Amino acid sequence: MPRPSDAKSRFISTAADLFRRRGYNGVGLNEIIAASRAPKGSFYHHFPGGKEELGVEAVRLAGHRIAKMIDQVLSEATDFDAAAARLADEIGAWFEASGWRDGCPVTAIVVDAVPGSERLSAAVAEVIALWIDRAAAHGERLGVADARERAERFVIALEGAWLVSRIQRSREPFRIAARMAR
Amino acid sequence: MPRPSDAKSRFISTAADLFRRRGYNGVGLNEIIAASRAPKGSFYHHFPGGKEELGVEAVRLAGHRIAKMIDQVLSEATDFDAAAARLADEIGAWFEASGWRDGCPVTAIVVDAVPGSERLSAAVAEVIALWIDRAAAHGERLGVADARERAERFVIALEGAWLVSRIQRSREPFRIAARMAR
Repeated sequence: MPRPSDAKSRFISTAADLFRRRGYNGVGLNEIIAASRAPKGSFYHHFPGGKEELGVEAVRLAGHRIAKMIDQVLSEATDFDAAAARLADEIGAWFEASGWRDGCPVTAIVVDAVPGSERLSAAVAEVIALWIDRAAAHGERLGVADARERAERFVIALEGAWLVSRIQRSREPFRIAARMAR
Repeated sequence: MPRPSDAKSRFISTAADLFRRRGYNGVGLNEIIAASRAPKGSFYHHFPGGKEELGVEAVRLAGHRIAKMIDQVLSEATDFDAAAARLADEIGAWFEASGWRDGCPVTAIVVDAVPGSERLSAAVAEVIALWIDRAAAHGERLGVADARERAERFVIALEGAWLVSRIQRSREPFRIAARMAR
């Protein structure tokens, strides 16, 4: 039996994985609870706000994972464009390896719950701002003149690529996105 | 009482409107049938394949509406970049007017049902290919050298903008997308 803190993080991590695959509305709370293998009785103790509160935590977790990936790839970089292309390529490779199933965790929530849910809308807005901030900070460090606009371009292009590559079952949209964000 | 053919198109049009707002999984068949004000008993006559078959028709309808918009804006154009910017701006204006609710009709299906549903995956792939083909044909007519790649860039950027603008509640991502697709 996992400790309560383990149970909470299992619920969040399982929800994040399932939402990105099948959308926020495509996965029921009972399925998340069963898949997380955490004690069912503890769910509302950790998440008195129910599925919406779990969704907020899942968006934050997934958002921070991708922010970490942005930091890892860009902190080693000497050239912003080359690093952005490498990051897009890594995300494309990881997406292909999942059988085009593990899409952008933010997109999955946006389509199903933004702007309908105020709390999920706020969580998603925080995550997108975080990605843009992190990419812009690396751009500035690397001497990119219009670092903020370049970071916004990169995030917009990446989101488009994640979607079109799921449709086309091809990594090519990520390559196009990397060229386009320059 | 509408004629049967009216009933069929009402079901499709209502489904297309509801799916783009709240996702494929966020809207139930009973809600679509009630909102369409068509005779409930005729639904399975028109759609023996149920919600999935209705989803395929809804994706096609929404996809053809946007293809028509691409044709309208680009057929009057003398300059591909300027026309693409105008098209992105029109889509942004229309999206804002809906309170950031009427998102990309294709994205709504992709997140919830691709690659899970083979039929919906195929319908979405057809629609994206149609948009790229139409934009590329106009680009070629206007003497753009790399018309197909430019059309792909435009569609990827537009999809990203549609998503990020829903999160930020701003038309700015459409402006960035237009500059980026150049």
